[in-house]
Amino acid sequence: MPIDWLQPAGIRLLDQTLLPDREVYLELRTVESVAEAIRALRVRGAPLIGIAAAMGVALAAAAEAAAHERVKGAIAMLGATRPTAVNLHWALRRMERRADAVTNPGDLPGALRAEAQAIWDEDRAMCERIGRYGAALIPADATVMTVCNAGVLATGGMGTALAPVYTLLAAGRAPKVVAPETRPLLQGSRLTAWELSRAGVACTVITDGMVASRLRLGDVACVLAGADRIAANGDVANKIGTYTLALAARAHGVPVYVLAPTSTIDPATPDGAGIPIEERAPQEVTGWRGVRAAPDGVGAWNPAFDVTPAELITAIVTDRGVLAPRDVTRAID
Amino acid sequence: MPIDWLQPAGIRLLDQTLLPDREVYLELRTVESVAEAIRALRVRGAPLIGIAAAMGVALAAAAEAAAHERVKGAIAMLGATRPTAVNLHWALRRMERRADAVTNPGDLPGALRAEAQAIWDEDRAMCERIGRYGAALIPADATVMTVCNAGVLATGGMGTALAPVYTLLAAGRAPKVVAPETRPLLQGSRLTAWELSRAGVACTVITDGMVASRLRLGDVACVLAGADRIAANGDVANKIGTYTLALAARAHGVPVYVLAPTSTIDPATPDGAGIPIEERAPQEVTGWRGVRAAPDGVGAWNPAFDVTPAELITAIVTDRGVLAPRDVTRAID
Repeated sequence: MPIDWLQPAGIRLLDQTLLPDREVYLELRTVESVAEAIRALRVRGAPLIGIAAAMGVALAAAAEAAAHERVKGAIAMLGATRPTAVNLHWALRRMERRADAVTNPGDLPGALRAEAQAIWDEDRAMCERIGRYGAALIPADATVMTVCNAGVLATGGMGTALAPVYTLLAAGRAPKVVAPETRPLLQGSRLTAWELSRAGVACTVITDGMVASRLRLGDVACVLAGADRIAANGDVANKIGTYTLALAARAHGVPVYVLAPTSTIDPATPDGAGIPIEERAPQEVTGWRGVRAAPDGVGAWNPAFDVTPAELITAIVTDRGVLAPRDVTRAID
Repeated sequence: MPIDWLQPAGIRLLDQTLLPDREVYLELRTVESVAEAIRALRVRGAPLIGIAAAMGVALAAAAEAAAHERVKGAIAMLGATRPTAVNLHWALRRMERRADAVTNPGDLPGALRAEAQAIWDEDRAMCERIGRYGAALIPADATVMTVCNAGVLATGGMGTALAPVYTLLAAGRAPKVVAPETRPLLQGSRLTAWELSRAGVACTVITDGMVASRLRLGDVACVLAGADRIAANGDVANKIGTYTLALAARAHGVPVYVLAPTSTIDPATPDGAGIPIEERAPQEVTGWRGVRAAPDGVGAWNPAFDVTPAELITAIVTDRGVLAPRDVTRAID
């Protein structure tokens, strides 16, 4: 489990930056440490970031001398950690509304812990529904291609993009997954391959440049991608590489499904051009787990996400059903 | 210079696997060591492999007790090192024909050294012509995108894909290059960024999954790719990732130029389906430079090349001019 509560007030977090080499669990007891863990990608995946942030707010409320000001400060700090995933802001708004509804500061710890737990529980249930809706789209014993990691390690449950894989597995079928490694941070080879292997799902890692050649082989039934933010018109921000993959899928007639909880839909952003894209340090591109690849002084571009236009997406699979991208806001009407 | 002769009989070779960290020159004095260097990618790039193999044959002929049998054995050993690049076989056939024309074994060393030198000299001249033809296709001070490394480090001269960049630079212009890192072996970040930086060309490294997002920005004038083999119908085998990149370029209306010497054209292979694609060890995909990314036991797919269909290629730039892909065999008529 990538996240859990610690008693009396704390968060136990799997440090995903150390996978697959080491399985290290951090014990976080301050809001600052939760914010650092989100910024440093020790916890990642749009839904899981939302859960971690909500739990971080609960942590602030549990501290001595908790008060509304302290909670507001925690929400501001956590909201500034990463700009693209909208689930983070959605979860923090929920925590803020819950805090605002509490008049006695002594009730804040219990109320905010309950709200964070509710966000987590709802995410787990959403993953299961996404898994059922998604599994119905996939032929028996199919090979699917994913990107980055949108599985157990990215959510409070069985994942989004990988939820149909786990649903099929539980039904006794044998889905197979092709995982592009997803440079620069290798969430495909480090995280997706790790969690699928432990679950007993056959997984083949490829480099990101191989996606078109792999799709040309003709046996990939569909692409399953998660999402960090879905604009009102159905444009999808997801891990860098998703747009390149979606173009390759279109060229080969392979359907592209985006799977995400309704908390990922952002009706306030009309289209993908309005989604802020986080740019991270160039060293993530010029090196590889501490080993330098490019010579000193060479520049690099490092957007953490890209935007796949709605017309390249076959359908968006949410916990409220399967929608055409242009209809995605109906899921939250 | 990535390759040179050693006196009295040897080859000085830059070990490209150690770049950009260390600039180490190997002294090769046996055919076996040349074959190992080609297999291990210490020397790489389709034209440079051809030159290295020709020099390796000359080395065999220079050894004591040199005879036609020894030369034939060297040609067989070198021909078995890598299957995709056709320049290797083209160069070895030339060496074989030259050997066959020599009746006195005592004349073999001189004749084969001269033939290897001629192959190198011709390659250098072909690079210069490719550079001039290619430069005429590129707007002033343009930004171009390449893939892998098809520059000085891949040829006996100024490169193929990068030759127009050097030609423009020599003419006082300021071309800029976007270099996808080209996993698994990172020839883009390790080699292209290295040689361009030393030449004073602005180079930005991106990951392979970023190509579509980078092209969407709208300022890339064209894609410049090398080739390992060009089939008679204009299909092009090149470093894995080229096909994915070509699909992204088509989606953005960016021209794709393939630049290669005529020795890369293989009239005996009707189309891309007939080009043998080298598959390399899965460990190149699951790790890099000894650092593992995927957990133990996870499978990987590792084709070293892909095939870009002729219809995605705007033009093929050879030392004999710019051709439509379907007309490429006219360059060798």
